[in-house]
Amino acid sequence: MTAAAAPRRSSAEQRRLDDALTLMWEQRIRFNQLLGLKVLSLQPDGVSARLDMRADLVGHYSYGRLHGGAISATLDALGGLALMVALGEKHADESADQVIHRFGRMGTIDLRVDFLRQGIGSRFTAHAAVTRLGGRIGSTQMRLLDEHELLIATGAASFVVS
Amino acid sequence: MTAAAAPRRSSAEQRRLDDALTLMWEQRIRFNQLLGLKVLSLQPDGVSARLDMRADLVGHYSYGRLHGGAISATLDALGGLALMVALGEKHADESADQVIHRFGRMGTIDLRVDFLRQGIGSRFTAHAAVTRLGGRIGSTQMRLLDEHELLIATGAASFVVS
Amino acid sequence: MTAAAAPRRSSAEQRRLDDALTLMWEQRIRFNQLLGLKVLSLQPDGVSARLDMRADLVGHYSYGRLHGGAISATLDALGGLALMVALGEKHADESADQVIHRFGRMGTIDLRVDFLRQGIGSRFTAHAAVTRLGGRIGSTQMRLLDEHELLIATGAASFVVS
Amino acid sequence: MTAAAAPRRSSAEQRRLDDALTLMWEQRIRFNQLLGLKVLSLQPDGVSARLDMRADLVGHYSYGRLHGGAISATLDALGGLALMVALGEKHADESADQVIHRFGRMGTIDLRVDFLRQGIGSRFTAHAAVTRLGGRIGSTQMRLLDEHELLIATGAASFVVS
Repeated sequence: MTAAAAPRRSSAEQRRLDDALTLMWEQRIRFNQLLGLKVLSLQPDGVSARLDMRADLVGHYSYGRLHGGAISATLDALGGLALMVALGEKHADESADQVIHRFGRMGTIDLRVDFLRQGIGSRFTAHAAVTRLGGRIGSTQMRLLDEHELLIATGAASFVVS
Repeated sequence: MTAAAAPRRSSAEQRRLDDALTLMWEQRIRFNQLLGLKVLSLQPDGVSARLDMRADLVGHYSYGRLHGGAISATLDALGGLALMVALGEKHADESADQVIHRFGRMGTIDLRVDFLRQGIGSRFTAHAAVTRLGGRIGSTQMRLLDEHELLIATGAASFVVS
Repeated sequence: MTAAAAPRRSSAEQRRLDDALTLMWEQRIRFNQLLGLKVLSLQPDGVSARLDMRADLVGHYSYGRLHGGAISATLDALGGLALMVALGEKHADESADQVIHRFGRMGTIDLRVDFLRQGIGSRFTAHAAVTRLGGRIGSTQMRLLDEHELLIATGAASFVVS
Repeated sequence: MTAAAAPRRSSAEQRRLDDALTLMWEQRIRFNQLLGLKVLSLQPDGVSARLDMRADLVGHYSYGRLHGGAISATLDALGGLALMVALGEKHADESADQVIHRFGRMGTIDLRVDFLRQGIGSRFTAHAAVTRLGGRIGSTQMRLLDEHELLIATGAASFVVS
């Protein structure tokens, strides 16, 4: 997924891109902010984020269980972030602004989430990795773990990219 | 899906059940409340709810587009509600409390959402219908429409029931 | 999905296209032939095909149940056919050959199948309809019914189109 | 997934179980035989099988590409096999016959397949691992690789178990 021949952006420009992606993802995508998602790591081979439990993310009041919708929203959002990072690698000759601009043309085609265990706990971690990055379609796989590294949910999503 | 031989609950008790389901779904499931979901209709052959657009449900700041995660959360939640109503029909001899108690043993197994068109508008309507209600597994299909009845997304989910 | 301004192909050319699609789908796509799929209807608003039960399509020997893989293969194949017909409508100014040529650039992005009831019987009917046909992505919904019109499975698939 | 306290079946009985599972999966599930699936490995942490290309598995005649339906059928079938092996581990006190009998009560709830790259080649390998094994629901993740270990497709499926 590296553009071998293309001039690689400087480390300062890479930092600008990482900061811009983080700002966009945590704050400008307002629903991510409502969920309280925070970026943990942005790497070409995968990205991570954290979701802290709070009362209004509860789905099942009897158990204080994380709502399935909060899980699927987190995994969808993180899949998109993984693809943005991969697009930044693929187009390593582009400025941070040019890469960010690509987000404007990206859209989720579909999402599947498997809910494996109850989401009970105070803090969750989500990971996403790109499984395909073509000229038109990108695909990602995602996982949500609780604070004991127990697998709570897995997901897969496809996106239109350009 | 009707329990032919079983004594049917009274219309007063049915109203109690509908009110209890609405209260549970709109308020006690706190994440539904955060989304602002409102029940429109509870029928054995399908349920509807409404989701009003607001700034913190935005996914794509350039277009003010509804976040995919808000769509998938809405469809997941509505699938569960359709199944609760169907369980109420199947167990028509049970009190409202007994039916509500069944929610405590229900869980989403998995969810798929297809995002067909951009969610742009001020108000969305979601519909869900039950495609299977067995002794252990329930399945539902869901749709999200914008205010011009344009199909924005479709979904399918399976649930553990008892 | 009609190309209002474009010259519409003649009914003879439309028949040529329908025949070419049927030949391609039933015979040139060899795995469809192995399954024994037969086109029943090709309409812009949906397509149908038939799958006859036979011993080597069995998944569950105890019950003579249709294999889930035969179901998902049928639904995947029929979704693709529905899109080809829709592409034929969209490009109503193109010859049969030009439309068939578009199949060469089509590919399934992903598929989901919900298995609702056991596939027991001697003959099944599958239906597919297009839910989105954009410039790059097409989406379809599919259903499999048994000979008593009982819903056996539902499916959804997304495709790259051009 | 081990039943710590239960008496573990003898290695002879384990071999009987592995042979019975292989026979059932390769031959008695007739559609698997039609596909030509062959078991490569049966381990509690995952199973593998092989699918050899041949003319009647082709989906796309222009490229000799493996049909998406053959891919989804393979992944569905392998997910079921992984669960049968996991059930054999969970019920390590049961005879081979008792474990095989559990297959009669197993059924796929749903399946999703992501088609990542074209399936071109002479031989494919599929892997499946169990991500959840509860009392009622089992879930698996699957992958299909070509002979160069390139990832062709990923899948996820849920099953009713008992």
